[in-house]
Amino acid sequence: MKNRATGLGVGLRPHMKTAKCLEVGKIASMEDFGPVTVSTLAETAYFAAAGCKDITLAVGITPHKLAPLADLQRRYSVEINLLCDNLEVARAVGNAAQALRTAFSIFIEIDCGGGRGGLDAKSSQLVALAQMIGNSDALSLAGVLTHAGQSYRVGTFADIVLVAEAERSAATTAAERLRDAGIAVPIVSVGSTPTTLAAQSLAGVDEIRPGVYMFFDLDQFCLGVCDLEDIAMTVLATVIGHNPRSKRLLLDAGSLALSKDQSAGNRCEGFGYGLVFSIDGERRIEGAIVDDVHQEHGFVAGPGNFDDLTAAFPIGSRVRILPNHACMTAAPYDRYHIVRTDDQRVIDIWSKVRGW
Amino acid sequence: MKNRATGLGVGLRPHMKTAKCLEVGKIASMEDFGPVTVSTLAETAYFAAAGCKDITLAVGITPHKLAPLADLQRRYSVEINLLCDNLEVARAVGNAAQALRTAFSIFIEIDCGGGRGGLDAKSSQLVALAQMIGNSDALSLAGVLTHAGQSYRVGTFADIVLVAEAERSAATTAAERLRDAGIAVPIVSVGSTPTTLAAQSLAGVDEIRPGVYMFFDLDQFCLGVCDLEDIAMTVLATVIGHNPRSKRLLLDAGSLALSKDQSAGNRCEGFGYGLVFSIDGERRIEGAIVDDVHQEHGFVAGPGNFDDLTAAFPIGSRVRILPNHACMTAAPYDRYHIVRTDDQRVIDIWSKVRGW
Repeated sequence: MKNRATGLGVGLRPHMKTAKCLEVGKIASMEDFGPVTVSTLAETAYFAAAGCKDITLAVGITPHKLAPLADLQRRYSVEINLLCDNLEVARAVGNAAQALRTAFSIFIEIDCGGGRGGLDAKSSQLVALAQMIGNSDALSLAGVLTHAGQSYRVGTFADIVLVAEAERSAATTAAERLRDAGIAVPIVSVGSTPTTLAAQSLAGVDEIRPGVYMFFDLDQFCLGVCDLEDIAMTVLATVIGHNPRSKRLLLDAGSLALSKDQSAGNRCEGFGYGLVFSIDGERRIEGAIVDDVHQEHGFVAGPGNFDDLTAAFPIGSRVRILPNHACMTAAPYDRYHIVRTDDQRVIDIWSKVRGW
Repeated sequence: MKNRATGLGVGLRPHMKTAKCLEVGKIASMEDFGPVTVSTLAETAYFAAAGCKDITLAVGITPHKLAPLADLQRRYSVEINLLCDNLEVARAVGNAAQALRTAFSIFIEIDCGGGRGGLDAKSSQLVALAQMIGNSDALSLAGVLTHAGQSYRVGTFADIVLVAEAERSAATTAAERLRDAGIAVPIVSVGSTPTTLAAQSLAGVDEIRPGVYMFFDLDQFCLGVCDLEDIAMTVLATVIGHNPRSKRLLLDAGSLALSKDQSAGNRCEGFGYGLVFSIDGERRIEGAIVDDVHQEHGFVAGPGNFDDLTAAFPIGSRVRILPNHACMTAAPYDRYHIVRTDDQRVIDIWSKVRGW
């Protein structure tokens, strides 16, 4: 992704909401530690305490969250950039920041078609919002920012190319309108993993904010933006039972350990709640999937004979599950075990942040 | 549930996998602290450290998990009951327990139709397994245990009545077969919240293990086993945006804060990822639901005019989301805020266990 950003002529502000981990962030960052993107107060505090000096909290802000952020800015000399798409909220945020005797830099969020946060790039409120931010003693305009969340919901790589252009176009259109009104727009920020990898041009864009590429997952594989071999995070589980009546292996990893996300299933048939690999990273039974989950149980089905499945995976043996959606699967864990691929040795343990 | 157990003439061994919380467990328990059920090593350690002396770890055991359990038994004088449905595993567990200089009591798990763990009640291996457990120096037979996981997947309350009888019948059939072979079966254990509440008889059963009733949720409401007013756990979220293009309110609670579980949707239409109540527990807009989730964003749709929705829930206002599935929603949180219903004051904070 660093090469991709360099090739596209843009900066990289990796989104840490997937990995939530200092060591992963240092690998992802252009510098040690360059700018990052986060999505919770807990992640903001974690990366500020780790020494990151430039953090974008990329979820629309409300004034009641400013006190802990002001505290972080003071304690760690970090600059925290916030998102806003609303005049009244911007006024309240400016007043609250002033009362807290701090200042925040604000990205105006643009909706490029996902219908989540953000003004339409052509909104009549865009210029007024930028002016209000510029006129506040406690706020400054960081730029415009958009995220094409819809890139995860399209059908093919060709569709992502179109979404990437819509994302670029929305952000640059908004920036041009502000510049035409005489307002400086320091940063035009876009990005998701699929759109960053599919974009044919990022003309007019200053930085990208992909995140899931650090691990990839089955959903990204089904979108056509990675290979199965690129998926870097797996869930280690133990075979705890063989049920000949349901013809299922049972794992001690269920809906909490794997998540109930089935996004890959929108495009690829038959991935269930994850693909089953043996512990050495081999796919011992082609087509073996976690086809059902209870809270702490995973049910594994294979395409062929049940005896083949049980022979390949005896009770007590361990398997690796490739996840549908790395963000959802990684989130509840406290740490990653870093495994050397040639001999499966755990060579390090990296802690991570979780919760809110 | 205490009254229900008393009325049915059975003991109550509440399943703590939903609440994962000491204070909730004390309320649920017949005594302070009576027997409990758990589903992870982390929950076992948490309740052992809290002083619980009789814990059933109700997920099929494998030998590599015995060392931490042996340590808990020694340190806290707790008896940990394990599940097994396989001769080879029972032999390996007995050998491992002996090597660890400890002993475990073992429930033989019976599959009553869910196709998860357990032998068929009529399995030819049942008696041999009980004999192997009885003959091991390090194991003793606690009894037979089954769980009708399929009770969450049926259509109506009448269906649950049938599942409850299948659950009872499987467990008591297995117990009778063992007793006919001259083997003592101290405990016949069954239960889920739906089957416990629907069962017409629990003749021959000694204990029940329901869990989700401590909170209830929309799925249980749709199953017909609780009212909306009975749902005791909600997720507090803030309205962080209004998007007039998608006609959605945005919340700072998404797929991680609410979970992606949509089990209630199997029976009730239109509950999405949760029902939206105002902070005082009122349902300000009938039919307002979280109809989509991203990682840290919830999208709220209402049945009527978007202006009514935004007027009821201005940006910065807070809402309570009633969850689809309490087990999935509560799991990643570190604590509960205990709220007095009459004035919405937080009167206590209860920590909980999470992870594995």
